[in-house]
Amino acid sequence: MGQQMNEQMNIEVLQGALAQYFAPWVQALGLAVESFDTDSVTLRLPSNDQLSRVGGMLCGQAMMAAADTAMVLALINQFGEFRPCTTVQMNSSFLKPLSNQDALVQARVIRAGKSLAFGEIDLRGADDGKSVSRASVTYALL
Amino acid sequence: MGQQMNEQMNIEVLQGALAQYFAPWVQALGLAVESFDTDSVTLRLPSNDQLSRVGGMLCGQAMMAAADTAMVLALINQFGEFRPCTTVQMNSSFLKPLSNQDALVQARVIRAGKSLAFGEIDLRGADDGKSVSRASVTYALL
Amino acid sequence: MGQQMNEQMNIEVLQGALAQYFAPWVQALGLAVESFDTDSVTLRLPSNDQLSRVGGMLCGQAMMAAADTAMVLALINQFGEFRPCTTVQMNSSFLKPLSNQDALVQARVIRAGKSLAFGEIDLRGADDGKSVSRASVTYALL
Amino acid sequence: MGQQMNEQMNIEVLQGALAQYFAPWVQALGLAVESFDTDSVTLRLPSNDQLSRVGGMLCGQAMMAAADTAMVLALINQFGEFRPCTTVQMNSSFLKPLSNQDALVQARVIRAGKSLAFGEIDLRGADDGKSVSRASVTYALL
Repeated sequence: MGQQMNEQMNIEVLQGALAQYFAPWVQALGLAVESFDTDSVTLRLPSNDQLSRVGGMLCGQAMMAAADTAMVLALINQFGEFRPCTTVQMNSSFLKPLSNQDALVQARVIRAGKSLAFGEIDLRGADDGKSVSRASVTYALL
Repeated sequence: MGQQMNEQMNIEVLQGALAQYFAPWVQALGLAVESFDTDSVTLRLPSNDQLSRVGGMLCGQAMMAAADTAMVLALINQFGEFRPCTTVQMNSSFLKPLSNQDALVQARVIRAGKSLAFGEIDLRGADDGKSVSRASVTYALL
Repeated sequence: MGQQMNEQMNIEVLQGALAQYFAPWVQALGLAVESFDTDSVTLRLPSNDQLSRVGGMLCGQAMMAAADTAMVLALINQFGEFRPCTTVQMNSSFLKPLSNQDALVQARVIRAGKSLAFGEIDLRGADDGKSVSRASVTYALL
Repeated sequence: MGQQMNEQMNIEVLQGALAQYFAPWVQALGLAVESFDTDSVTLRLPSNDQLSRVGGMLCGQAMMAAADTAMVLALINQFGEFRPCTTVQMNSSFLKPLSNQDALVQARVIRAGKSLAFGEIDLRGADDGKSVSRASVTYALL
């Protein structure tokens, strides 16, 4: 899954990783790989009543779960393969609510060292493009 | 739901809030109110294959979702009623994996002011009592 | 100090705010306003033995202090004036060490609402341009 | 500096580490080792005009610097010696202002593994005992 492969192939591989490495409850988010580039992966989180609390707003729990999941895929994309890793720490800020639209979740690898990797995630409305949540995360590479 | 009420009543009220204020996907965690005291609420997160990734370990996404949810209940417990609020920021640390046991999620209100509330969450194994994740959170009271 | 003013004026005003609103111990960092744009302010943190621990590396404490300080200036820049505010929460990640060069500290306002403001800070080497620390911060506007 | 040593000795050793391992600018905080136990170290941060911004309140930058510093000492206390380590991430919450009194900064090791250590810090007023800031931190052990 190196950089010599074409985009279609990578999206399929990344989409396959979603089914392979994550708990069924996380898969119930319905995340779909939207795009990727050298150091980032973008997932689409479809609008879904199951993820909304009263008022039709996407719940923060789903935002955090999508962000963490997107970051694991960004690391797979970065390394060209799945490497065992574990989330050490994650910090999320919730800027404003999101309702009545899909979310795009872009996870970017900021630095990947030998034993630690750092990433940042931006979650925005798919229709209006406005950022609604930002997260930063630290992973330990095992 | 003030402090004059008995414990049974409060557990019922808090359990009812779980069904009333959270997205169906969050309710699928199967959280149950275990206990509470003046400034904290403890939830039980039952062991569940749906929440496990490869290796039988509870996924971090479920830990974060349970922590955020427990904190909303701790605020309801603190205020004696549901007050509209929104998570502003949440930081989670993942100390070690958890497998093959329920988790207990204790959320404690550290400070509740007029417009902001601060809380801390400890998630530990229900059998071995070992802390596996800690979180701190900031809420805006609307 | 609105957007109609020229850059020189704003840099002077922002530099003046550094002397006016911060503790002497923070001023001892020797921060200088380097540049600004619509939603960000960049400060220079001069290389200084007083800020180095063994090995000539800039200490993390100085990085955090510079980041928080830069963000207050970014809010002044954003609002066109000093508004009383208080740091609610700040999260910092330390990606790699910095030594033997100045640091550039760019603070960007991500969202400024009525009662809360969110920002992100990037601290990088002034010579090599490499990011060494990232921070996110929440401010309460009083 | 193991647990067989008496408290006086440990306080001296820990106080000596403050002078040995930290930047002069951090030493200017005037931190003094107050006490320790198996998994925590408490420092006193003396009230000092140099650390106050307008209004006589202890600046947040000093709180963060004291917290990070206290945690390094807690790790020295935990390991019985100085081990090279680096702060990976630190999250601080600011609950309320502190003025006109010393601060006590208690840093506790939550978990120390082979390559990572986790800690939590509570900063409170030395006179009124009220918590004003809380922090959590991740260290990489080198």
